[in-house]
Amino acid sequence: MYDGIKGFRDFYPGEMAARRATTDTIEDAARRYGFREIGTPALERAAMWTDKSGDEIVEELYAFEDQGGRHVALTPELTPTVARMVVAKQQELSKPIKWFSTRPFWRYEQVQQGRQREFYQTNVDIFGSSEPEADAEILAWAADALTDLGLTEEHFEFRISHRDILGGVLESYEADVETTEAIRAVDKSGKISTAEYHDLLAEAGLTYDQAAEFDDLIAGGDLEAVESFADTERVTAAVENLRNVLSAAEDFGAREHCTISLETARGLDYYTGVVFECFDSTGEVSRSIFGGGRYDDLIESFGGQPTPAVGVAPGHATLSLLCQRAGVWPEEAVTTDYYVLQVGDTRAEAARITRELRDRGHVVETDVAGRSFGAQLDYADSINAETVVIVGEQDLANDEVTIKDMETGDQLQTPVEEFPGDLERPTLEDFA
Amino acid sequence: MYDGIKGFRDFYPGEMAARRATTDTIEDAARRYGFREIGTPALERAAMWTDKSGDEIVEELYAFEDQGGRHVALTPELTPTVARMVVAKQQELSKPIKWFSTRPFWRYEQVQQGRQREFYQTNVDIFGSSEPEADAEILAWAADALTDLGLTEEHFEFRISHRDILGGVLESYEADVETTEAIRAVDKSGKISTAEYHDLLAEAGLTYDQAAEFDDLIAGGDLEAVESFADTERVTAAVENLRNVLSAAEDFGAREHCTISLETARGLDYYTGVVFECFDSTGEVSRSIFGGGRYDDLIESFGGQPTPAVGVAPGHATLSLLCQRAGVWPEEAVTTDYYVLQVGDTRAEAARITRELRDRGHVVETDVAGRSFGAQLDYADSINAETVVIVGEQDLANDEVTIKDMETGDQLQTPVEEFPGDLERPTLEDFA
Repeated sequence: MYDGIKGFRDFYPGEMAARRATTDTIEDAARRYGFREIGTPALERAAMWTDKSGDEIVEELYAFEDQGGRHVALTPELTPTVARMVVAKQQELSKPIKWFSTRPFWRYEQVQQGRQREFYQTNVDIFGSSEPEADAEILAWAADALTDLGLTEEHFEFRISHRDILGGVLESYEADVETTEAIRAVDKSGKISTAEYHDLLAEAGLTYDQAAEFDDLIAGGDLEAVESFADTERVTAAVENLRNVLSAAEDFGAREHCTISLETARGLDYYTGVVFECFDSTGEVSRSIFGGGRYDDLIESFGGQPTPAVGVAPGHATLSLLCQRAGVWPEEAVTTDYYVLQVGDTRAEAARITRELRDRGHVVETDVAGRSFGAQLDYADSINAETVVIVGEQDLANDEVTIKDMETGDQLQTPVEEFPGDLERPTLEDFA
Repeated sequence: MYDGIKGFRDFYPGEMAARRATTDTIEDAARRYGFREIGTPALERAAMWTDKSGDEIVEELYAFEDQGGRHVALTPELTPTVARMVVAKQQELSKPIKWFSTRPFWRYEQVQQGRQREFYQTNVDIFGSSEPEADAEILAWAADALTDLGLTEEHFEFRISHRDILGGVLESYEADVETTEAIRAVDKSGKISTAEYHDLLAEAGLTYDQAAEFDDLIAGGDLEAVESFADTERVTAAVENLRNVLSAAEDFGAREHCTISLETARGLDYYTGVVFECFDSTGEVSRSIFGGGRYDDLIESFGGQPTPAVGVAPGHATLSLLCQRAGVWPEEAVTTDYYVLQVGDTRAEAARITRELRDRGHVVETDVAGRSFGAQLDYADSINAETVVIVGEQDLANDEVTIKDMETGDQLQTPVEEFPGDLERPTLEDFA
């Protein structure tokens, strides 16, 4: 017997039903916003990551040489792929380009709760708008998707910042600061001690006094204080952009979910503007549920025309943890409208009833295993059938079938020609 | 600039919309039959194929060693995975187990029309029933799925046989025949010349006279002739089983789509009973659209309890070719219910209207790129917006908005507080 691979999950029907309902909810919200579904490959050239991404993602890459000698990788994220797709058709595509897709990605990571090596994300992106309304629309979609899942302000918050606030404040120091290193330090600050955080800032080029001052300023989250501390055009512009995004988010109905949090940096280097992360408000899910932001330079770095972009990618594993803790995760069970039970040689009539019910759009099963009355009834129970239609030889001799309500256990007989008759969704009550 | 990998397709929104509609149709049919969706990993241990599958699938495997030293493969098919899943929970799962899933698979094949290296299939399987009703239910689902796509008897047929008919007839020769090789020869017979076919049969151990006789007998497709020629229990039982499956298919509404075709063998070695392939009735798509059949030994070979099984796996690429030639492929275009156009500083009101329309479930876009009236109208046209709601500063000063029907070009003004008002899906006509 073979076993599955560590970090790769099998989803059986009950759990899958809950995941499907969740994915449908998220995608329905994306469709209402006019995001359009795209389909993308599982493999890309490994160079799309090895040429420029941070060390971490390259170290975690499932990369190999294919039979044609291509160095390929199982995609660890979608953004480079959509960038490639935008570049390939940038003349034909009308802007703004608004795309979404749900699919698995792969990273060779340490497996832990909410983190597998194969993980599902719904990516939602807008290309071709640098306006704050685009950032706000991404936030508004994310808020609507979570709200549609049954989550409220009590359960989640978006911590939002602008990449140039950190960059600009660091730049305003006279010392020679490694900005990227310092921003990575900020990104890690929630997971490490203050001393370790200040050590990392010092490694990036700040003195320990400056590190403490910087820490206070950023933790304070006061936009005016940051603006006057840096006193540079870059920081002033970043603060203005962040305020404009929040103002648009107000109109779009998402402002109440947003908290300014200047520590929010996002680890990936390609972000250029507003960045945000979704956190569990109760703090029970300690790491970020998902994040997103603006990445205006990526398309150009892929050989395309300069094309501003903003996006977000909720991961389904952490999202399901959040929903479970909030008590809004769908029940992990299959549902069945009808089971048509055959007793004796009644297949033709049972099949007729089954087909008529399916034609009305219902989920209907009938016996395909030649099993006994009791075994069929147990099976009907195991698939949570609401109504069982018993088609028995003796009943049929009287031109009748038996209808059984599985919740109450009540049953009665009715003329076979009346079932399902003209009824859209006949139940026991219709014949009582 | 990076390019995609040969045999791996990008799907842009128009084409993706048609694929999504097709997938939804197929899956809806599966759900109505009570097939339950499962989720399965992209990677499995390569040994699942290298240990036992035919040479072809092993040669085409995307296999590599992961960072943990595991020899893994991108799954080229679903069956071994579902077999593994059934074995892992065979005590808990109530039988019959009826599962479906739609996902990509990967094979390093020659790329041609309808065949990519990454290809999508919807797998539908029943485990735990050896009854002919299970085979017939698979056929009935496939027929319903194709019918729901708009295809008719004119467009497709299921060519059906039983693996033991070929095997049993071959066994009945006194010569020492390599049955597996001979069955592979039959499987290829439609694609090669008669002489080549007979050569392959001769290689498998038949004399050329026997090969010609065997060819005639199988091509004739006469079940009685086959039964009396072989005159063995095995062939008699196979013929009876095939007849029983066709009889159940009659009750299940699928018989009219089935043609007995004893050349239908299916290349894969794990089939054990009824096998079938779906062909384009007009012959325009020359190779099999998809196929399926019974594989009663596979679960046991994976270390499980003996568990009969039957399944089918329509591939979406060949299916789309069939639909296109039949003229029933959905239009490859996005659809949009409303575009809410902003003129001047009207974002708050436009956002209010946008949100109210989205709350009613409609696909609604509004400007997120700060564009001109003309650019917005062009964009609305490019996304096939049905209705444009123009929210202009001057109109708003009069408490009005303009509603424009994009098909007729007609437009009129209406009080802003009446839009959308109590209407579920307001159009120009509602205000005319």
